[in-house]
Amino acid sequence: MGATHLAELYRHSLALATDLYQLTMAYGYWKSGVADREAVFHLTFRVPPFRGGYAIAAGIEPALELLDQVRFTDDDLAYLASLKLFEPGFLDYLRALEMTCTVDAVPEGAVVFAHEPLLRVTGPVLQAQLLETPLLAIINYQTLIATKAARVVQAARGRGVLEFGMRRAQNLDGAFSGSRAAYIGGCAATSNVLAGKLYGIPVRGTHAHSWVMFHDDELTAFRTYAAAMPDNCLFLVDTYDTLDGVAHAIQVGRELRAAGHELIGIRLDSGDLAHLSIEARRMLDDAGFPNARIVASNDLDELLIGSLLEQDAKIDTFGVGTKLVTAYDQPALGGVYKLGAVREADGSWRDVIKLSEQPIKISNPGHLGVRRILRDGEMIRDVIYDVRDGAADDELLVRAIERGVRVRGASTIEEARARCAADLARLSPRTKRFMNPQPYPVELDPRVEVRKQALIAAAQGGR
Amino acid sequence: MGATHLAELYRHSLALATDLYQLTMAYGYWKSGVADREAVFHLTFRVPPFRGGYAIAAGIEPALELLDQVRFTDDDLAYLASLKLFEPGFLDYLRALEMTCTVDAVPEGAVVFAHEPLLRVTGPVLQAQLLETPLLAIINYQTLIATKAARVVQAARGRGVLEFGMRRAQNLDGAFSGSRAAYIGGCAATSNVLAGKLYGIPVRGTHAHSWVMFHDDELTAFRTYAAAMPDNCLFLVDTYDTLDGVAHAIQVGRELRAAGHELIGIRLDSGDLAHLSIEARRMLDDAGFPNARIVASNDLDELLIGSLLEQDAKIDTFGVGTKLVTAYDQPALGGVYKLGAVREADGSWRDVIKLSEQPIKISNPGHLGVRRILRDGEMIRDVIYDVRDGAADDELLVRAIERGVRVRGASTIEEARARCAADLARLSPRTKRFMNPQPYPVELDPRVEVRKQALIAAAQGGR
Repeated sequence: MGATHLAELYRHSLALATDLYQLTMAYGYWKSGVADREAVFHLTFRVPPFRGGYAIAAGIEPALELLDQVRFTDDDLAYLASLKLFEPGFLDYLRALEMTCTVDAVPEGAVVFAHEPLLRVTGPVLQAQLLETPLLAIINYQTLIATKAARVVQAARGRGVLEFGMRRAQNLDGAFSGSRAAYIGGCAATSNVLAGKLYGIPVRGTHAHSWVMFHDDELTAFRTYAAAMPDNCLFLVDTYDTLDGVAHAIQVGRELRAAGHELIGIRLDSGDLAHLSIEARRMLDDAGFPNARIVASNDLDELLIGSLLEQDAKIDTFGVGTKLVTAYDQPALGGVYKLGAVREADGSWRDVIKLSEQPIKISNPGHLGVRRILRDGEMIRDVIYDVRDGAADDELLVRAIERGVRVRGASTIEEARARCAADLARLSPRTKRFMNPQPYPVELDPRVEVRKQALIAAAQGGR
Repeated sequence: MGATHLAELYRHSLALATDLYQLTMAYGYWKSGVADREAVFHLTFRVPPFRGGYAIAAGIEPALELLDQVRFTDDDLAYLASLKLFEPGFLDYLRALEMTCTVDAVPEGAVVFAHEPLLRVTGPVLQAQLLETPLLAIINYQTLIATKAARVVQAARGRGVLEFGMRRAQNLDGAFSGSRAAYIGGCAATSNVLAGKLYGIPVRGTHAHSWVMFHDDELTAFRTYAAAMPDNCLFLVDTYDTLDGVAHAIQVGRELRAAGHELIGIRLDSGDLAHLSIEARRMLDDAGFPNARIVASNDLDELLIGSLLEQDAKIDTFGVGTKLVTAYDQPALGGVYKLGAVREADGSWRDVIKLSEQPIKISNPGHLGVRRILRDGEMIRDVIYDVRDGAADDELLVRAIERGVRVRGASTIEEARARCAADLARLSPRTKRFMNPQPYPVELDPRVEVRKQALIAAAQGGR
């Protein structure tokens, strides 16, 4: 089901899932007779999130699927008519509109850097413009969360990371997308059952504090759970007193073993996790449960996990929720979708840029792709170049949609997850570190640079 | 359509939109024969967001609608069977499950405070437990955003605030929910067209930088737009040079006026908004456009808006996006759903609490409601009390669902927005201020306090 989840999740037409200004501009393009003039847009971000050195591209496949959802229904058109902004002829145009854009995209799960196009959308300006808002909404968020997940997984140094964030996400779809992106970024499983069903992500969970509170005492609660699910016993031990809880888990663990089952482990969810995990480990080992796992949670992120491991915390698995699915320390990627070139009436292409007082906000002109240079299997350099200057066999973007028709099968979530892991393995630890990462070299091809400077000079001179 | 938007937006059953541990606990309750034992859960938050003094309850109606979506389909049950965690008899139980919970809820849009139940869910423990995750996902986020919006609107001191955040939200549904909550919190309109259609929120928008870049020069771009939509001309002036852009807007404004139309205004989206707005105002006034409005945007939040107005910025309307829909400075409310009481086998109720080393995390026991005490139309005090101690005629929560059946019509989004405005008008400015707000008095009824202390003592003594 993963490949068509958007179509399944929403039964609405998504043509109106955009900003109004995309529609007023569409009207302007139609009214001035240039709706079908071709344009090139690039979806990029300007700074890697979390003061890090890289990002993980995610949301690419859902974004590509979106194009199939852009169909204006009668219901949509009746709503647009009610706004009293548009002529009836324009609404007829929208009714007949079929997406004919061409889309080149980086592979889902790829490591990407600032200013690189994650998508290049080429097609009638009216259509390419309409797609801006939903493409950004989908890719901005999932890229942010896949990146956060990759960092958390890196901090966990081989220990498992479970994503538990559903209750703190932006409504239900925020949670699904977040679980999806977290899995691509390297999380081992999610608590979100519908994400498990829709995307095939492994699901995990045992019980909450309320299970313990419901029963007369903690020992009874653990015993009752063990009677129901003797092979899924990972007890949450901090409802009342954590180390008492560990003792109760051990007691029920012995009863389980006598009945031919084995305690899976315990979960710590509050308090000094370094100290408590060391104490719990000692208690479990002394009691003959060296294989019982210790899961820890409580507002964890990559920095807290790093700190816990530095303290020799005896934690086998980390449960990460709020800080992951909200990307708490930087909850927006800030990706943008900027025009790079426009087809003139005479059929020639004109490059364009957006100026800004802030150099980082000046866009790059052209029809841009990314060359990724490897040496001995290591990523050593990327080059942002114009595909009209000659095809490159180390091009990162691949043609996904050709004039509205999918020309490449969707990559699965497992393929995206594998791509992420493989790309991270090819990336220097200097760029992956959290503190002052070394910027990965991303060059602008000199031919693009020349055109860019000419456009800047012309725009400034032409005031 | 607003009243049934969840049912419309998702065609999936939402029974699996929950954490796995809700289902493993459900299995445990079923297996141990107590699935239908009644329990009381309270949905609360522990600290008002943004270091503020209050929150605005939102997401209540969508959360109530959710209960109708919880039906396990054959497809859901096949997925659960594939997990190999549950007996077939349990899946049959889920297949036949109909929600019979009773829900009392604060009105959507009401001002609420820490520890107050926004929802009280009473019903079979298995059912009430399953609802935890989706109720939190919906109410946590919308309450956070409605609160942020109320603060931004307060900072704007009567000037309009437009919500433009769709591209930075968590996927498409995060954007819909965010636009809904922002409108309840007091925003005047959204850029999100589908939110406009589904919820009836006014929509706003004109054009982006790409419109200007597409055309040969800015003046041509403005003229072409004016030809298409002469009555919707609010020009974005910072694509190349902001004050040049204002001059171009004025030039086209004169042409519009000559043709019998009027320039609506301009939008500033970068640079020193205080300085540029003052300059732009002077230019517009000098040119005979004193009624042309100045809209400003660029990562604004309540503090930046306050700072701009202190500098006498000449801004009529604020466009707020990323910082609003992500609640950037605190992207999670952290609401929780805690068990308050359990029906024993003998039919009596037993109060329960969750202990913690952090006193703020100790839950309150019982069947809790909120009395809101007004004096001369001002809110002066709330009391968290146990509804079994006697009904209060100043009770804030109202019965929304009685044993699975809706007993009160859904409040509209306009009613919620009006409630928010009315409640904020009744709240002291000392509690509404941003810096060191005075905590609003929320008392725990002494009878509840006595029971709570007894439970704490018993739990600590009974280790």
